[in-house]
Amino acid sequence: MTPTAPAAPALLNVKADFPIFDHHPELVFLDSAASTQKPRAVIQAISDFYSRDYANIHRGAYRLSAHATDRFESVRADAARFFRAPSPDGVIFTRNATEAVNLVAHSWGQAHLNAGDVVLVSEMEHHANLVPWHLVTGLRGARVEYVRATPDGRLDLDDYAAKLRNPAVKFVALQHVSNVLGTVHPAAELVRLAHDRGLPILLDGAQAAPHLPLDLSALNADYYVLSSHKMLGPSGVGALIARPDTLNALPPYMGGGDMIREVYPDRSTYAPAPNRFEAGTPAIAEVVGFGAAMAYLTDLGMDRVEAHEQTLLHAALDRLNQIEGLDLYGPPTARGGVISFNVRGAHAHDVAGFLDEANICVRAGHHCAQPLIRALGCASTARASFYIYNTLDDVDALAGAMAETAEFFR
Amino acid sequence: MTPTAPAAPALLNVKADFPIFDHHPELVFLDSAASTQKPRAVIQAISDFYSRDYANIHRGAYRLSAHATDRFESVRADAARFFRAPSPDGVIFTRNATEAVNLVAHSWGQAHLNAGDVVLVSEMEHHANLVPWHLVTGLRGARVEYVRATPDGRLDLDDYAAKLRNPAVKFVALQHVSNVLGTVHPAAELVRLAHDRGLPILLDGAQAAPHLPLDLSALNADYYVLSSHKMLGPSGVGALIARPDTLNALPPYMGGGDMIREVYPDRSTYAPAPNRFEAGTPAIAEVVGFGAAMAYLTDLGMDRVEAHEQTLLHAALDRLNQIEGLDLYGPPTARGGVISFNVRGAHAHDVAGFLDEANICVRAGHHCAQPLIRALGCASTARASFYIYNTLDDVDALAGAMAETAEFFR
Repeated sequence: MTPTAPAAPALLNVKADFPIFDHHPELVFLDSAASTQKPRAVIQAISDFYSRDYANIHRGAYRLSAHATDRFESVRADAARFFRAPSPDGVIFTRNATEAVNLVAHSWGQAHLNAGDVVLVSEMEHHANLVPWHLVTGLRGARVEYVRATPDGRLDLDDYAAKLRNPAVKFVALQHVSNVLGTVHPAAELVRLAHDRGLPILLDGAQAAPHLPLDLSALNADYYVLSSHKMLGPSGVGALIARPDTLNALPPYMGGGDMIREVYPDRSTYAPAPNRFEAGTPAIAEVVGFGAAMAYLTDLGMDRVEAHEQTLLHAALDRLNQIEGLDLYGPPTARGGVISFNVRGAHAHDVAGFLDEANICVRAGHHCAQPLIRALGCASTARASFYIYNTLDDVDALAGAMAETAEFFR
Repeated sequence: MTPTAPAAPALLNVKADFPIFDHHPELVFLDSAASTQKPRAVIQAISDFYSRDYANIHRGAYRLSAHATDRFESVRADAARFFRAPSPDGVIFTRNATEAVNLVAHSWGQAHLNAGDVVLVSEMEHHANLVPWHLVTGLRGARVEYVRATPDGRLDLDDYAAKLRNPAVKFVALQHVSNVLGTVHPAAELVRLAHDRGLPILLDGAQAAPHLPLDLSALNADYYVLSSHKMLGPSGVGALIARPDTLNALPPYMGGGDMIREVYPDRSTYAPAPNRFEAGTPAIAEVVGFGAAMAYLTDLGMDRVEAHEQTLLHAALDRLNQIEGLDLYGPPTARGGVISFNVRGAHAHDVAGFLDEANICVRAGHHCAQPLIRALGCASTARASFYIYNTLDDVDALAGAMAETAEFFR
């Protein structure tokens, strides 16, 4: 027998699970890096929870509340399994990845940053992993320095290593995957280099968690943040994941119910993680919906999710690379299902408008990453991003419409 | 014709709008002060939004996103109308009332609190309006003082006036309605007295907004906070309401996407309110659901909501006052649909457990108000709270079960 090439990985076939496409059969949704659509299982989980099981959680002295608490807390355990977190107690539910970064910036920064200290970020960060550090360093008399991007959209690892040698650097905060270019950074190496200098590191996983199988225990970043709404789950919930002992060493972020041990009129003492960082009534039904999203992704398998996106990405790059007058950004390898581009002579918003006429949804602008957009030497880009419900037909539609758009502006 | 007494206000008849009672017809839900059940209209609004209209908002260059943005922003206008806020731009969506207090404590406190300054709260506050002030005064070398409660569970207004004369007081933060006792404080007078001293005041309206018609423009508190989940809306969303100029004078709270004007690697400039305080992807579907809740309450009429609760409250007080061995807390007048009580010789948790056996849901404990519970001279209370779906049958069930419980412990 002659050896045969391995078969191309089978594409997922899940579009029918997403009601948005029943209501908009013509929709070519290529803006999943901004937020994903929701499968029926997630929408139904939220409806069912409100219709059958809803009550406020914790402190409830009746069965309905105890059951709602169990539902909520079981998602903490689900998340720890899904992301291979060190412990459910190290899973803190926030509104979104942005709040999770702010929590760490505020709590770690207030406790540890002093005048002259440096927080090291990169030129490629989403504003969510940049502005919180501007705010806290501003309050503490510290400052932000940044790792440069390479011209093809990777982190400059030589520059990273050099910047880490500055003894003023006290904290490192970097993205795992670029929301503009799809670059998958070498996260394990980023963590290792920071830890070699004895520095804590936060990884912004908002664009990684939806797309890659994660093993956060092995990765060993001190803080990892992500959002539910970018991975099939509801809006209004995200997570900070860390070791419980790391979290218990931080001062609280928000004060309120559920995060305290004892409260007197003039002082309070605080509970350990996770409660320590979940003040007030949490996003109860949203956490339940996030649990349904993780269950759905588990059933698919994150390896297959990643393979599906890679197939679409490379099919799209092959097609788009053949179109004259189109500038594509980002590295040739180690990238997820995100393509940023510009049509020469056209503004990205006009390109997006043309695509919208063909029912193709892409985002245009600075993608909350103004420093990177400046470093790329453009004012904005249009960005197409893929997820599990996209198909090769969507790639065809994008490529066809882009060829027409480029032709129009030529 | 002889004049006739006005008819007693008709009770609302809305239980059939709440699917939880289809699934649990036996449920006597008396824990609405913790969180309310949701009408079908709210659950459906969330499902429909995810199924038909979902996309990330703002910055979207396609019609689906523009439409989702319109849906989201229209709720800001709805909220301004519903609460008679000064302007939609002064409505900031947060996760809950707790986050709204933390926002003000952090932003106002970082800008204005100095060593030796005092934030004046009350002994009756929910932890949500106490612990954030402990945190920020701790960071700024300032401290918290508190207005005493009267033995019957009102704010001691003489003590308030006296404490306001302390020139170290720089900010006032008080509840509008007590979550433990239902006391409706004289909000207009609380605001006037603070303003007479030139002091900004925050009112915690978490227990007022669901139950009373509000006119926040007339009330004129500098900051007003509330939660959606206590007024028929989804979990995961609340609001801070203030004048836009008040908000624009504050430094930002969280940093991230959408709240910026320009971002450079080492510094940022910030957008005006409301965006200034809404970093990252907001609770999009939850805000849409909150809009549906306000629409539902508008259709009922907040006057009728208040009258319904008053009818149930007084029917319940009449019945419970006749039960021997029962201690009831709270003032005789000016109170909403909340009753805290203890059975002499029994722990509140045991009482709640007895009631749960009869499918009556009440909360037991310190109700996130440890200082007040200490001031009342007890370790905990059981608390029954009414909302629009409760009926006189629920009052009967509570009174009957309480008579049995008190008998058991006698």
